[in-house]
Amino acid sequence: MEGKETSRLEAFSDGVIAIAITLLALEIKVPGEQPEGKSLWIALFDQWPTYLALVTTFVMILIMWINHHRMFSHIHRIDTVLMLLNGGILLGITILPFTTELVGEYLLKPDGQKQVAAIVYNGVFIFTAIFFNLAWRYASQKDRLLNPQADRDAVRGLTRQYMFGIPGYFITLLIALVNFPLSLVLTIFIAIFFAFPNKLFSGARVTGETGP
Amino acid sequence: MEGKETSRLEAFSDGVIAIAITLLALEIKVPGEQPEGKSLWIALFDQWPTYLALVTTFVMILIMWINHHRMFSHIHRIDTVLMLLNGGILLGITILPFTTELVGEYLLKPDGQKQVAAIVYNGVFIFTAIFFNLAWRYASQKDRLLNPQADRDAVRGLTRQYMFGIPGYFITLLIALVNFPLSLVLTIFIAIFFAFPNKLFSGARVTGETGP
Amino acid sequence: MEGKETSRLEAFSDGVIAIAITLLALEIKVPGEQPEGKSLWIALFDQWPTYLALVTTFVMILIMWINHHRMFSHIHRIDTVLMLLNGGILLGITILPFTTELVGEYLLKPDGQKQVAAIVYNGVFIFTAIFFNLAWRYASQKDRLLNPQADRDAVRGLTRQYMFGIPGYFITLLIALVNFPLSLVLTIFIAIFFAFPNKLFSGARVTGETGP
Amino acid sequence: MEGKETSRLEAFSDGVIAIAITLLALEIKVPGEQPEGKSLWIALFDQWPTYLALVTTFVMILIMWINHHRMFSHIHRIDTVLMLLNGGILLGITILPFTTELVGEYLLKPDGQKQVAAIVYNGVFIFTAIFFNLAWRYASQKDRLLNPQADRDAVRGLTRQYMFGIPGYFITLLIALVNFPLSLVLTIFIAIFFAFPNKLFSGARVTGETGP
Repeated sequence: MEGKETSRLEAFSDGVIAIAITLLALEIKVPGEQPEGKSLWIALFDQWPTYLALVTTFVMILIMWINHHRMFSHIHRIDTVLMLLNGGILLGITILPFTTELVGEYLLKPDGQKQVAAIVYNGVFIFTAIFFNLAWRYASQKDRLLNPQADRDAVRGLTRQYMFGIPGYFITLLIALVNFPLSLVLTIFIAIFFAFPNKLFSGARVTGETGP
Repeated sequence: MEGKETSRLEAFSDGVIAIAITLLALEIKVPGEQPEGKSLWIALFDQWPTYLALVTTFVMILIMWINHHRMFSHIHRIDTVLMLLNGGILLGITILPFTTELVGEYLLKPDGQKQVAAIVYNGVFIFTAIFFNLAWRYASQKDRLLNPQADRDAVRGLTRQYMFGIPGYFITLLIALVNFPLSLVLTIFIAIFFAFPNKLFSGARVTGETGP
Repeated sequence: MEGKETSRLEAFSDGVIAIAITLLALEIKVPGEQPEGKSLWIALFDQWPTYLALVTTFVMILIMWINHHRMFSHIHRIDTVLMLLNGGILLGITILPFTTELVGEYLLKPDGQKQVAAIVYNGVFIFTAIFFNLAWRYASQKDRLLNPQADRDAVRGLTRQYMFGIPGYFITLLIALVNFPLSLVLTIFIAIFFAFPNKLFSGARVTGETGP
Repeated sequence: MEGKETSRLEAFSDGVIAIAITLLALEIKVPGEQPEGKSLWIALFDQWPTYLALVTTFVMILIMWINHHRMFSHIHRIDTVLMLLNGGILLGITILPFTTELVGEYLLKPDGQKQVAAIVYNGVFIFTAIFFNLAWRYASQKDRLLNPQADRDAVRGLTRQYMFGIPGYFITLLIALVNFPLSLVLTIFIAIFFAFPNKLFSGARVTGETGP
């Protein structure tokens, strides 16, 4: 039974990711009774750190989902080790609603506290990136679980792209320690940039190999 | 891998939509201990703004799901841009449990406050409608991602129907500013009307084109 | 596009039902700090109305899921009306976590209050049963949306079984007004009984028709 | 209709399991406003019992999912009894977020209380293991619902492995009564060990049977 279809693993992972991305919005709280003369607009606007954290994490999870599928488009078979490493990816993703709420709460707190939130928030991304790398390396090493028809070049491109993920999050973390809100906005743009199958990571070799 | 099957994107979207529509009902609160002599009926009845908001949003999400599938029945391939635009649709939908709770809370509040809730509530629908339009236009422009066998006429009908969505929500918003509860009831009926593949939007041309 | 595959509608419905059945358990509250000398066992045991309501609703939703699939095993095509009627079924199911919590809270309250809870709890089951009947009648009337190879006899059996559902819930409701906890236990047994494709409802005709 | 495809039952079960595993992380609470001078690190670190309980249950649910699929890879047909027994498995799984929260809350409480939590936590695992056994025995007895091509040896191995599950949980429970945190760490390792299709349970006979 092992080593067959990846479809179930993907469906299960899709379920977890879909739930995590939907639970994010539960963090937005309806403002309670407003004092006379205070506009509901202001009460809603005051929650902007939560909105910013929400949109950032939403985009991040969306990109992770895209990457998860890109990865499994090359993987042909599954085994227990891959299921467990994939579990590490999912564990990271299920924690994101918590870390997002933490950011919403502590984004504007004094330096010592908001930096803790920044480290935890980016730390969970790094945790997830590590398991993405482990899962991919395990599956792709010596083509262990890959589709025999897998595009060699795309496989190498993915390996290189994932390798850049971990240091990338460290840089975001460093920016977050200096200017947390800015780092979130940057994260959105970087994430969208990474969503596109990255020519940069395929490198010069591509040209040669795809030539006639 | 990109540009193949839409089924995964649909399954993921279905998951998010199913979760959002189910989370709506979590907003209904069980009335706490009732004072002597006060009926539980009254306590339950007092929550009618929440029920009205819930049913309205439930019907709206159901119709969005129907429209999402109608749209993807014509789309044959996916790419990163479509995945991101679809993410915009999903972001709007995941926020609906929050805006619904906001309406339940503020439907009967003084004018200044309930109008804020009305603008936010309809604003998220407009946000979602914009991404529906962007996704559809991106996919259908020059048949970029369409099924080669797509029914030309149904495609044009959908384009016209989506175009009407945004001004439609603006009209609902205007009514909501005057009479918020009434606008919710109207929204239910309009949404159900829109659920049917609309002959109005296909126009006269249909007759000609479907002729022998 | 309309009138094709029922698989998407089923997958979406499965999603909603799976979420509703899982959210039930969120109602169980972890007892707070216990006063010196009071056992946690007692604090946990004191929540038995919640457990009873939870198990009853869990079994009910499980049976609804079985019935939903039995129904759609005969249905071949979908249209907008069926999607909307199916939406009514789903609306009822998403409300069940709320009514279950209501029962857990009010099962042991004074008569006037617990009877309100009993009426609401069974009322939502009746609501759901009505939409089950409407959906099935719409689909099966003149074989509108049925599988051409549908087993005539099973179709008639289902029609008869669904017809008994509504008065059945009224009887449970009457028992609930007299002895609410007992009615919940009864409901579990009746629901499990109904889970089996009911020979009673197929009647004598079966014998003749299945003969050679 | 009964006795056909297991795919729907699996998809529904996947949905429930995916939701339960994602809801676990909702128990992590964002620490409230910290008093002057107290680090957020300490407030986060103080929640370690919740994290430990969360990771333990996450791994357990992941392994249950793997086992559920291994079981259904041998099962070819479903009937009402199997659907109900599978419902017992799912009921156990949906309760796990509650028992996990209970452990997070009571792991460090006085002996009398934390042992109650240990019994409840392991008790729900035993409950689930019983239904796993019942479902598997019902399906595999006289090959009632098995795939005719099912690997005889794998079937016997699974029967033996499941048989060990229940006493295994009793042993974990006994350890939990003495050292609860340690028992959770042990559970993680045991669970991962069990995830691998266990050669131990297939026994010596395998060698003979797989010979030419």
